[in-house]
Amino acid sequence: MKIDAATIKLVRRRLYSGVISDVLDTLGDWDHALAPHVRPLDEELVLFGRARTGLYMSVYHVEGRANPYELEIALVDDLKKDEVAVLGCPKGNRVAPWGELLSTAARARGAAGCVTDGLVRDLRLIRKMKFPVFAGGIGPLDSKGRGAVMKIDVPIECGGVRVTAGDWIFGDVDGVVVIRAALAEKAVALALEKVKSETTVREELSKGYRLKDVFARHGIL
Amino acid sequence: MKIDAATIKLVRRRLYSGVISDVLDTLGDWDHALAPHVRPLDEELVLFGRARTGLYMSVYHVEGRANPYELEIALVDDLKKDEVAVLGCPKGNRVAPWGELLSTAARARGAAGCVTDGLVRDLRLIRKMKFPVFAGGIGPLDSKGRGAVMKIDVPIECGGVRVTAGDWIFGDVDGVVVIRAALAEKAVALALEKVKSETTVREELSKGYRLKDVFARHGIL
Amino acid sequence: MKIDAATIKLVRRRLYSGVISDVLDTLGDWDHALAPHVRPLDEELVLFGRARTGLYMSVYHVEGRANPYELEIALVDDLKKDEVAVLGCPKGNRVAPWGELLSTAARARGAAGCVTDGLVRDLRLIRKMKFPVFAGGIGPLDSKGRGAVMKIDVPIECGGVRVTAGDWIFGDVDGVVVIRAALAEKAVALALEKVKSETTVREELSKGYRLKDVFARHGIL
Amino acid sequence: MKIDAATIKLVRRRLYSGVISDVLDTLGDWDHALAPHVRPLDEELVLFGRARTGLYMSVYHVEGRANPYELEIALVDDLKKDEVAVLGCPKGNRVAPWGELLSTAARARGAAGCVTDGLVRDLRLIRKMKFPVFAGGIGPLDSKGRGAVMKIDVPIECGGVRVTAGDWIFGDVDGVVVIRAALAEKAVALALEKVKSETTVREELSKGYRLKDVFARHGIL
Amino acid sequence: MKIDAATIKLVRRRLYSGVISDVLDTLGDWDHALAPHVRPLDEELVLFGRARTGLYMSVYHVEGRANPYELEIALVDDLKKDEVAVLGCPKGNRVAPWGELLSTAARARGAAGCVTDGLVRDLRLIRKMKFPVFAGGIGPLDSKGRGAVMKIDVPIECGGVRVTAGDWIFGDVDGVVVIRAALAEKAVALALEKVKSETTVREELSKGYRLKDVFARHGIL
Amino acid sequence: MKIDAATIKLVRRRLYSGVISDVLDTLGDWDHALAPHVRPLDEELVLFGRARTGLYMSVYHVEGRANPYELEIALVDDLKKDEVAVLGCPKGNRVAPWGELLSTAARARGAAGCVTDGLVRDLRLIRKMKFPVFAGGIGPLDSKGRGAVMKIDVPIECGGVRVTAGDWIFGDVDGVVVIRAALAEKAVALALEKVKSETTVREELSKGYRLKDVFARHGIL
Repeated sequence: MKIDAATIKLVRRRLYSGVISDVLDTLGDWDHALAPHVRPLDEELVLFGRARTGLYMSVYHVEGRANPYELEIALVDDLKKDEVAVLGCPKGNRVAPWGELLSTAARARGAAGCVTDGLVRDLRLIRKMKFPVFAGGIGPLDSKGRGAVMKIDVPIECGGVRVTAGDWIFGDVDGVVVIRAALAEKAVALALEKVKSETTVREELSKGYRLKDVFARHGIL
Repeated sequence: MKIDAATIKLVRRRLYSGVISDVLDTLGDWDHALAPHVRPLDEELVLFGRARTGLYMSVYHVEGRANPYELEIALVDDLKKDEVAVLGCPKGNRVAPWGELLSTAARARGAAGCVTDGLVRDLRLIRKMKFPVFAGGIGPLDSKGRGAVMKIDVPIECGGVRVTAGDWIFGDVDGVVVIRAALAEKAVALALEKVKSETTVREELSKGYRLKDVFARHGIL
Repeated sequence: MKIDAATIKLVRRRLYSGVISDVLDTLGDWDHALAPHVRPLDEELVLFGRARTGLYMSVYHVEGRANPYELEIALVDDLKKDEVAVLGCPKGNRVAPWGELLSTAARARGAAGCVTDGLVRDLRLIRKMKFPVFAGGIGPLDSKGRGAVMKIDVPIECGGVRVTAGDWIFGDVDGVVVIRAALAEKAVALALEKVKSETTVREELSKGYRLKDVFARHGIL
Repeated sequence: MKIDAATIKLVRRRLYSGVISDVLDTLGDWDHALAPHVRPLDEELVLFGRARTGLYMSVYHVEGRANPYELEIALVDDLKKDEVAVLGCPKGNRVAPWGELLSTAARARGAAGCVTDGLVRDLRLIRKMKFPVFAGGIGPLDSKGRGAVMKIDVPIECGGVRVTAGDWIFGDVDGVVVIRAALAEKAVALALEKVKSETTVREELSKGYRLKDVFARHGIL
Repeated sequence: MKIDAATIKLVRRRLYSGVISDVLDTLGDWDHALAPHVRPLDEELVLFGRARTGLYMSVYHVEGRANPYELEIALVDDLKKDEVAVLGCPKGNRVAPWGELLSTAARARGAAGCVTDGLVRDLRLIRKMKFPVFAGGIGPLDSKGRGAVMKIDVPIECGGVRVTAGDWIFGDVDGVVVIRAALAEKAVALALEKVKSETTVREELSKGYRLKDVFARHGIL
Repeated sequence: MKIDAATIKLVRRRLYSGVISDVLDTLGDWDHALAPHVRPLDEELVLFGRARTGLYMSVYHVEGRANPYELEIALVDDLKKDEVAVLGCPKGNRVAPWGELLSTAARARGAAGCVTDGLVRDLRLIRKMKFPVFAGGIGPLDSKGRGAVMKIDVPIECGGVRVTAGDWIFGDVDGVVVIRAALAEKAVALALEKVKSETTVREELSKGYRLKDVFARHGIL
């Protein structure tokens, strides 16, 4: 199952992070879910797209020279349609590497959203835009003089999970899942199938059948 | 005050966790409130019912044999009307021992809800069901190969509080409170009374009376 | 720019914590944003007012004598129009030093709101009042026998930031910012200006101009 | 078994925290061991004496008036022979409420030692004195302007365990145990007995007998 | 290089955890070092042997039936020469699953030592035995009624690293390293070689050669 | 008091971190003590010298190009007599940016020691060298592929305290203190004085004078 524009739409409409996570377990990739403190700013939105990565470092001074946002700007200006900016921040980070202006710029390029284990600011405007952003917290502090993207498109860790540029990212109300590029087509196909069987299970359970019997029949929980 | 079906309804309609907590303090039981990271999935819902307990362990492999959910299924299949599944998980747990299918099964048996200091998944569907679930976080990871219920109906710790099967559990937007079985009738009766006096206090305060005087008059804050 | 009643209204309507934080950075005050776990109970409300401080201590018994809430009551009864009660609590605090009755009393005096890094209870009623409260968490436990205000109107730390009585406090969906009394007039004036230029930037970005060029033109991100 | 001067010496020579802890479990008091980050400054020393308690609060300014150490000085000046100063500090405390000068003063009064979950300084000199001090960490910061004892001889929490003035405190290389006053005579008597049977077990195990059989014979592990 | 009795002795005498860790990096296994809070009880001792695993769960009551230590006893009674008991405990565990009697029993069977991310007690006697034990902390609490080994010889996590029965464990003053069974022969051979080149580097550096040049020459740091 | 070679020796022989910390408080610099988890590898050694700073970032891959240690090597190769390498690492860092070979190289240049809130390895050899190293922990993992110095001689944060190249660093068994360059001469002079008065206080206390009176006389605790 090629992941083209039509599949991307289908995934966003039909899948959810739980079913993708189950399928990745089956495929032997157990370490794919970002830590639970990474939450969506808007629980209604679904994110699906390809990762472009940025690696953050804490800094403790403003450098005299030019542009403290240089690499972050480069990353956002280079985002393509359906790409997701994924920013890995140091633990205990109290800075917001993402906000409304970057969201506006990213959306103008067709980007699918942003995921960071750092903070985000400008919630009101980002929510109004309906732009899917998942963050490790919320806070007003700008990154200038506090943090900077030092490398882009390298492997990073975000929410405790390794993310490589080109991985697929799925996020919804239940959290964020990283789908390795090599597993993506298979995972999406299997997840679309699994969604169907869950409907049967749900119906049987709501009729009052015992979990034990339903699980014996379908092997799904 | 016997806690029968009518009382249960009354408690759900009239009481809130703060007033029950105050009353338990008065009765000498100070350690009854789950840690504040245990939050309701839906802040509108109120939970009141009797605890059935499950004790979780982290595991790091899928066992060859049969059913990784065996005891959890047994617990849910055995839930009676107005019972609450309470699942105690290890600290730092990143797995969701509860989700929509278990909610569906539990509700079909008349259970009142679920409380866990672990994670929960399938928020969208659980919220749609209006089934009261309180959890230590949200995340997509299934428990298979990561965690398992090892014992049921034994004393556990959930959110830092000891819970014994048969204790009463009350949860609302302010948190979750455990009411020891032996104190329950007295606590409910006292709480229903206290609710009334708070109305008087509120009225006086909103008229602009000084806290100092109102507190001197009613001894309530 | 004198901060009189008209300015206070203007600030509440026009500003947001991000822009104030940026301006404080410019003025050389980098340590002004409360830790991100201090969140608004109602994300729609904006708080702006002058700090009145209370310093909390954990206690482990109820003292025989009189009134465990004595200094807290004194603080609230003394709140003036547009003042904000700021309560600094010990780390790991599980107690709610603030709730609905204190909110009612504070509002009756014209207070602007409350900020604490401790817990708060009675969410339903506080939200109904539309009274701006920012807290480090939510929980039902009363402070009696667990914590007490030991000093008022002294310098405290709240959410990791030093707060002195008389500082200005601004809070919204993005977090809480402390504006030192000495910087307040300048900061407010600068923030009101900065808000305007951001509109231009936003418009250019949404038209698809590259971040790099827009940042070069306006120096704002 | 009355805990007189002779018993105190015997306890210090014969017992260790593990055997006392086991005996307290048997007597139904499960919550008696301070958190493991509370460590002896000198692993060779044994502490046994009666608790005198002090409750610390974090402060954020130096008060103009007189003596920031007032209550702490009062506590130390009042220590009697074989008493132990137990200082409960707020979590995350980075201040040293105890050091060499207080150790010198306490020892001059015959005090048995000091236990705190805060920090301690002046290790070199305290170790030279062979004065038993157990602390939550080591650091050079004085408490003036950072913390103060607000109450003495009230119930406190130290290392996560409730301590009341008059409780017996035992500390050695394995940690610190609180023996409630009411249980002390019984606990000491039982522990002195248990120490003997452990010798038999140890001898059998070192001869190569299987744990299973030795445990079946003596019920001790 | 077969890991026979002679190699085991050689490894204990010549290698150290840093050089083994470097070699494992080279072999592509990056996740092999236990978290730094797992420390040796005696910094002079070196541990090298094969893992036998036990998986711990927190419990909150003493079960009426028989033997709370059943599986732990089974594991220790079955230890063979040069095996290492590796016990994985839940995070935040405050219980000591290991102590002097188990050390005595293990040593009597020829076991090489014990590694746990839980606590250990009876330091004085264990140190006197010169038995290598590495633990996540020190504390007096027995496991009975607080924790129990639920499975043995299954894959576990200890100090954040996956350990499978049969892996080789190396521990010294710098920490504990897990060497996967499949990599062990190669890793040991490479490490013995690397130790030699480090001597050359050390000599050149102590003569004052610049790091830059020495690193260029030998590629080792 | 100029801080020349003679003063440096005097400081190392006479002062300790507690007295320097007290003096810095007096001079109005309250934030000068590294967090207490930064400990000396050898509690007998005293460190005093001028800071040269390095700022670490976590990385998650080995870059193809040349030298992963480039800036760290540059920093060490450039150390002058009595300078101290101070390496600030991200929170939760599990990597050792410092070890025996760097110690050897640094010592060969006359450097005074190393301070890091990251880990250190090769304890045995570093201790044998009697080279003063203070670290946030101990562990065997090399930094290659896990972390890298990204900037040198910029302001950093180490153990929670801002350090600027040129600040003076004092470390002993009680911890590490940063003395801002501008305060150093005054602080050293005052500390040398204070040390003397403490001797008087100690003598009075050990004779049994009450703390209250001794403190009233000398104002020192």
